Amino acid sequence: MVVTHSTRWVVAVLAFAGLFAAAGSLPSAQAQQAAAQRNRVVIQVSDGDQAKWNLALNNARNLQADLGANNVEVEIVAYGPGIGMLKLDSPVAGRIDEATAAGVKIVACEITMKGQKLARADMLNAVGYVPAGVVELMSRQQQGWAYIRP
Amino acid sequence: MVVTHSTRWVVAVLAFAGLFAAAGSLPSAQAQQAAAQRNRVVIQVSDGDQAKWNLALNNARNLQADLGANNVEVEIVAYGPGIGMLKLDSPVAGRIDEATAAGVKIVACEITMKGQKLARADMLNAVGYVPAGVVELMSRQQQGWAYIRP
Amino acid sequence: MVVTHSTRWVVAVLAFAGLFAAAGSLPSAQAQQAAAQRNRVVIQVSDGDQAKWNLALNNARNLQADLGANNVEVEIVAYGPGIGMLKLDSPVAGRIDEATAAGVKIVACEITMKGQKLARADMLNAVGYVPAGVVELMSRQQQGWAYIRP
Repeated sequence: MVVTHSTRWVVAVLAFAGLFAAAGSLPSAQAQQAAAQRNRVVIQVSDGDQAKWNLALNNARNLQADLGANNVEVEIVAYGPGIGMLKLDSPVAGRIDEATAAGVKIVACEITMKGQKLARADMLNAVGYVPAGVVELMSRQQQGWAYIRP
Repeated sequence: MVVTHSTRWVVAVLAFAGLFAAAGSLPSAQAQQAAAQRNRVVIQVSDGDQAKWNLALNNARNLQADLGANNVEVEIVAYGPGIGMLKLDSPVAGRIDEATAAGVKIVACEITMKGQKLARADMLNAVGYVPAGVVELMSRQQQGWAYIRP
Repeated sequence: MVVTHSTRWVVAVLAFAGLFAAAGSLPSAQAQQAAAQRNRVVIQVSDGDQAKWNLALNNARNLQADLGANNVEVEIVAYGPGIGMLKLDSPVAGRIDEATAAGVKIVACEITMKGQKLARADMLNAVGYVPAGVVELMSRQQQGWAYIRP
């Protein structure tokens, strides 16, 4: 029996479908696993409570100590009553400097700053900014970061 | 050289496997990406603290303001000492009405209500109900929602 | 028209690619769905507040009551000021025993214990241990567990 033109068409479709499926799905599974294995933690600070600020900074330090600072990304997001942690007169100012020097990203919510009439000049130098703290916390989780709320 | 019956069988298996793999895996990858890009946030209220109730409502409002109300789903789950936020005499009753009118879903935990001998008649009209607040919070995260605990 | 050697090579590649894609991607999709459907919840206790300890234990109990104890895995991680929940003199010691007897896993953070000069002899018998509570909370979320912070 001979191979017909329609059989050859089936073979061509198969070649496309099979190889496309292999190319599309296998790296995707690997990518998912790689993404799952990356250590990324976003820490929320929304209390106006110095003990909580220290606890959040302890959490960041312990993540780095246990996993190795090069093996984990840590971001602290302060908003609402937590914004005081990042002001110039913050009682934990020294620890903020240490944490950012150690590679922890620390950001302030600009919605909160506007509400409390705070300018960037009122905030610690080491601090970064996000338009909305709550959106940052959502986005990080969407990107696969773990969430910790001390 | 001719195509044997066994070769045709291989082609048939390939057609099934290749197309099934393509049909099964590629839409799945697309679906996952689409799901990841949807903005969905569940907000937990479990403190008996009016400042926290306002903060949770601020979080919901800021999510809608920053992303556009049509681009984000927000659900507030109140349980334990947080249930007071949703009672008829709630000090934030006006804001609850505004939030639900703006599309925020707000639900009360029926286990908590039973424990505190609260009937639906004791709760604000705008409020919805879930059998167990903690199970709702788990389910939403399983469905890919971000979790915020103000 | 006859099948050439090169055509047979294409068929062989197709067989490999198609079947490999099917074997690789379809169980993976099933596994993902199965993983998503497993009910697993990690509960954080980081407040030195007896009311929060009871609320965390209520959350664990309600998860088991609503879903069936065999249908949900629950782990409570105590760290920072929350460590008091698991000490020998804990006011909720009886409830800790009940919860672990009911299948809830309860673990103490060894970094916190070291900081507070607590030995295992100072802790309730039912308690387990993790090197770093915050790392445990990250790992569980990476594994797909939902996170609850009462």
